[in-house]
Amino acid sequence: MSIFDKTRAMFHLPDGVIYLDGNSLGPLPHHAQDRVDEMIRDQWGEMLITGWNKAGWMEQPSRVGDRIGRLVGAEAGHVVMGDTLSIKVYQALASALEMQPGRKVIVSDTGNFPSDLYMAEGLIRSLDKGLSLKLVDPDAIEHALDESVAILMLTQVDYRTGRMHDMADLTRRAHEKGIVTVWDLAHSAGAVPVNLAEVGADFAVGCSYKYLNSGPGGPAFIYVAPRHANEVTPALSGWLGHESPFAFDLSYRAASGVERMRVGTPPVIQLAALEAALDVWDHVDMDTVRARAIDLSELFIAEVERTCPDLVLVSPRDADRRGSQVSFSHPEGYAIMQALIAQKVIGDFRAPDILRFGITPLYIGEQDILTAASTLHRIMEDGLWDRDAYRVRARVT
Amino acid sequence: MSIFDKTRAMFHLPDGVIYLDGNSLGPLPHHAQDRVDEMIRDQWGEMLITGWNKAGWMEQPSRVGDRIGRLVGAEAGHVVMGDTLSIKVYQALASALEMQPGRKVIVSDTGNFPSDLYMAEGLIRSLDKGLSLKLVDPDAIEHALDESVAILMLTQVDYRTGRMHDMADLTRRAHEKGIVTVWDLAHSAGAVPVNLAEVGADFAVGCSYKYLNSGPGGPAFIYVAPRHANEVTPALSGWLGHESPFAFDLSYRAASGVERMRVGTPPVIQLAALEAALDVWDHVDMDTVRARAIDLSELFIAEVERTCPDLVLVSPRDADRRGSQVSFSHPEGYAIMQALIAQKVIGDFRAPDILRFGITPLYIGEQDILTAASTLHRIMEDGLWDRDAYRVRARVT
Repeated sequence: MSIFDKTRAMFHLPDGVIYLDGNSLGPLPHHAQDRVDEMIRDQWGEMLITGWNKAGWMEQPSRVGDRIGRLVGAEAGHVVMGDTLSIKVYQALASALEMQPGRKVIVSDTGNFPSDLYMAEGLIRSLDKGLSLKLVDPDAIEHALDESVAILMLTQVDYRTGRMHDMADLTRRAHEKGIVTVWDLAHSAGAVPVNLAEVGADFAVGCSYKYLNSGPGGPAFIYVAPRHANEVTPALSGWLGHESPFAFDLSYRAASGVERMRVGTPPVIQLAALEAALDVWDHVDMDTVRARAIDLSELFIAEVERTCPDLVLVSPRDADRRGSQVSFSHPEGYAIMQALIAQKVIGDFRAPDILRFGITPLYIGEQDILTAASTLHRIMEDGLWDRDAYRVRARVT
Repeated sequence: MSIFDKTRAMFHLPDGVIYLDGNSLGPLPHHAQDRVDEMIRDQWGEMLITGWNKAGWMEQPSRVGDRIGRLVGAEAGHVVMGDTLSIKVYQALASALEMQPGRKVIVSDTGNFPSDLYMAEGLIRSLDKGLSLKLVDPDAIEHALDESVAILMLTQVDYRTGRMHDMADLTRRAHEKGIVTVWDLAHSAGAVPVNLAEVGADFAVGCSYKYLNSGPGGPAFIYVAPRHANEVTPALSGWLGHESPFAFDLSYRAASGVERMRVGTPPVIQLAALEAALDVWDHVDMDTVRARAIDLSELFIAEVERTCPDLVLVSPRDADRRGSQVSFSHPEGYAIMQALIAQKVIGDFRAPDILRFGITPLYIGEQDILTAASTLHRIMEDGLWDRDAYRVRARVT
């Protein structure tokens, strides 16, 4: 029994479904369902308010943060869970700006996830200090880095194409110009090896419901480099980021290190699901998962290109420049994806024309890839996607 | 069978426990446990990514918000769930400030919950526009309201003493001076009748894990008055507050109304628990609960004052000026509360010397109140709280 047979057995997958959308929402680990049920019954139900201490709810955001920290190469004690990814982006940006008085530009790329850009827009607008957000092509980032730039904010893996930035190289180039980096690891954590400490990243954020399988709306994480963690004063200065929350002081004093990035009461039920979901990583390491994901991705690309000539690969062909997803474009992408989902092969569609497939070896194997490719081939060949229902739907969406 | 026998039967309470801390964390509704288990199995497990549409996860923050909106007298469609209370305070403050160019002062009181004050501090600090936070005594608020004040930010019910502000009166006085109001309903929603529309409140925020029993870390809510909802541009401008999140535009355009106060991906599992917990309100109305809470509170005060002369009532004696909790002070309050908890009567302690008891008729009855009072009496009379373990603990905490 291979390690991946073992990890696959840890997940619930609906009968007959091939799930290639774990890059959007990971499937249910059996264990997470049990753990949440136990937590609710034995902790919330029986311990009531005392659960904050007795069941360790108060420390959970750091305890779980550390487990994710190990997956992204963070120093121990420098990742904490909470809120949503958008909020964590805001926190990182606000702190990074504080470190850069006199610099007025945030650089990002047009492949960044829109919410990251929106949060930057909102921050820039409220601060009203003449800051601007400069969006460049993903391939032109290095040319945009100069001494006027305060922050380089990037999502490492493009949510549409899977194109992966070279985090080490861009961080180094940014630092050469005195620029602080904010990395969004939404499509990296649990998907590709990341080593935050080694590349010298300043801030990193990410979500837990994609490749970390924490369930819909699971909390986000934030990393602050040890050299910065005690230097920044959070813009979102909530009581659980206070040095002594239960002193109920009237003034804020930041907690030590990344703990200051905590804000309000943590989502204990969602964290229970996440904590259980992370157990799969006790059985397999990131490099093993990555190697397998590349093999499966190459197989999927080869099969689809061989059998579906109308689909155009929009992910990088070079595996080293690609995250753990494969995307193709087609003008009728929406209709094709609907037809595919009707055949129980679940990927997703991203406007305007992208079919997106997450390659997640923890629960997807070679046979799934071959079946997905052949189902896609049959749909394209038979023009199944061309039928009225899908076409109509595609045109109005 | 009275209506309160019926509501009590909807909750799980540990054997022999009298739970007077529902003002901190409400107990488990049986139904919430079942609903979360079903949601995880049938929705996350079986629908996977399609749950966002099929199971209505995407609309859940508004659907649930509306149910809470009915409990606090909001106009339909003007409350939305998400994030934590601290984040919602920040959103409300940032939006209220935007409406008040030229005004530089946020007024609050020393009885406000510290996290609200910390969030204001953080916002003021990042904006760096000469704003200030002015804290006054809870009884002196009206004297602090003048034309220099941008915002009056108050928690209606004081978390320590239960003292309740007159929301209608203070809102009217604030509006007379052109001041925008931000009301924190953490200890009001599900505890006392509130009518946001009638009092003309501008912004209101609150949490769901206290009197609304959503479980540890349940999401917060925010209300924006209809007259403001389309006028404010969120500081925390996340993709789910965008007019068209799935267009993935590179620029933010605020969604219509209070929907723009959504930020990131909602915590679907916590929301399932909350949605189930709110079912109790289909069986009983807020006025009935309030009348019963006053009766039980009066009984508790009378019994404790009659039998425990060393405990000093710090809640207002006038029931109309008191929320749904009763607090007493004693220099050894921490030790006394520990002794009480050891006797399975659970209240809580708030520094420096307050014993706090939540009075929650949904699951607490007259006999519970009498038993709690007599247990407290026995502890005081026998000096049980004076024993070494408690004293030592009290001194080092």
